[in-house]
This record gives sequence, C-alpha cells and structure tokens, in this order.
Amino acid sequence: MTDSSAPTVLRKTVEAYWAAAQARDWTAFEATLAEDVVYDLPQTRERCTGRERFVEFNREYPGDWSLKVERIVAEADQVVTWIHFTVGTEEMYGIAFFTGDAQGRITSQTDFWPEPYEPPAGREHLVERY
Amino acid sequence: MTDSSAPTVLRKTVEAYWAAAQARDWTAFEATLAEDVVYDLPQTRERCTGRERFVEFNREYPGDWSLKVERIVAEADQVVTWIHFTVGTEEMYGIAFFTGDAQGRITSQTDFWPEPYEPPAGREHLVERY
Repeated sequence: MTDSSAPTVLRKTVEAYWAAAQARDWTAFEATLAEDVVYDLPQTRERCTGRERFVEFNREYPGDWSLKVERIVAEADQVVTWIHFTVGTEEMYGIAFFTGDAQGRITSQTDFWPEPYEPPAGREHLVERY
Repeated sequence: MTDSSAPTVLRKTVEAYWAAAQARDWTAFEATLAEDVVYDLPQTRERCTGRERFVEFNREYPGDWSLKVERIVAEADQVVTWIHFTVGTEEMYGIAFFTGDAQGRITSQTDFWPEPYEPPAGREHLVERY
C-alpha cells in the first residue's frame, strides 16, 4: 500500500497507453513502456518480454478491434483497468493489472479475458438473469 | 478519481470481507455490506440484490473452497482484488471490482472468473509459454 496523490503518474500513463492502442499510434504506445516490460496472460500461460516484442504483439493483433476504458482504479505504483473490447460483432471484457517504475512507465501488465459461461444450477432462487 | 489516504476505509472493509468469507464467519461478512448491495456476474448475466440474499449466495456456495488475496488496488471509493480460489484440485482466479458508501461498506461487487483457454495461432514468435 502506498500513499497516492490524485491523479497518479502511472494512471496517466495507462490512460495514454489505451488511447495510443486505440489510435494505433505505436510510437506513443511504446513511450508508455519500460524497456524490460513483461506482459503476462495467465489464462494461456503466455508471456511476452521486452518493449520491442510487446509493441509487435499489439501491432500484429488481428482484427478491426476497438476498446473503451470502463473503469480504472489507481494507486501510485499499480493500476487496474476494465476495458470493453469489440472485434466485429464480438464483445469482450478485458481486465489488466499494471505496475510501473519511478518514471511512471509500465513495467508489467497481467491480462485477464473472462468469457461468458452458463451459471451452475442451484442458485436460481438468489439471482436474477439479465 | 478521488484523493485517497493510505489505507482507505473501503480497502480495510474489503480485506475484512475476504477474511470473513474464508473463515465462514457470516456475521462478520454481513457487517461489511451495505443493505442494498448489488452483486453482479457479467459472464453469466446474474445479479444478486440485497444483503440478506447475498450472504445466502455465499453461505450456500458449494464445495470446500479456499481463497487467498493475491493483489489489491484501492482508491477511497473503489477497490479491486485479484484472488486465488481453490476448490478441491481446481484452481481459479477471481477478480472483483468493489464500490463503497460513505461508511466504508460495500455497495457493489462485480466479479469476473477467467478460465484457461488455448492461445490463438500466429503469435508464437512473440511469446513464451510457461
């Protein structure tokens, strides 16, 4: 837990990161990253290490995707975003945990992509579906 | 964006909430919740409304589950947790976005449960698997 001022430097970096991704401005995107940034996808157990490769990972990402930041929660040295991600007719949520360095650059991003599933039986009396 | 002091009241509430769940202390669990708390599961499109029903939802949750908070990111009025959740031999990640009221009680929780999936082809040159 760190004391944080509002808004934090890292929060501004993360906002710039998503704006650059949406704009396909890979120069601005790269500027938000520490050289040894680590991108981690626990669901697929994939890891992409280093700024250059990580920019490529994003630049090469297929499809005419679009993203919108739904929520952002920021401390001084860690930030979480919940984004709404659209590719064609597919809509997804993406949740990213970021950490940063003293310069406010992104040192790590851990991404989660939850998918729809059918609820288990037995709790219908406690919930509504929407 | 709100100015936050460290640690925030809501952060302490959320820590107490997870500790109470792990201890099956449903009285302590209930005390962390606002009366009109809303629990939302976007992946299944389920919603559970109200403190009493939400306590039941958790009390009735099947299996000999155990949880551990991996990461927590807190502002004054919103908190995110990343938990490691175990049921028998199954291990999962859970990500929860909380909001709170002026008394530091939980007014909403939006939960995401990402599951493992196979990575798409075409990016093997940019990642390692682990």
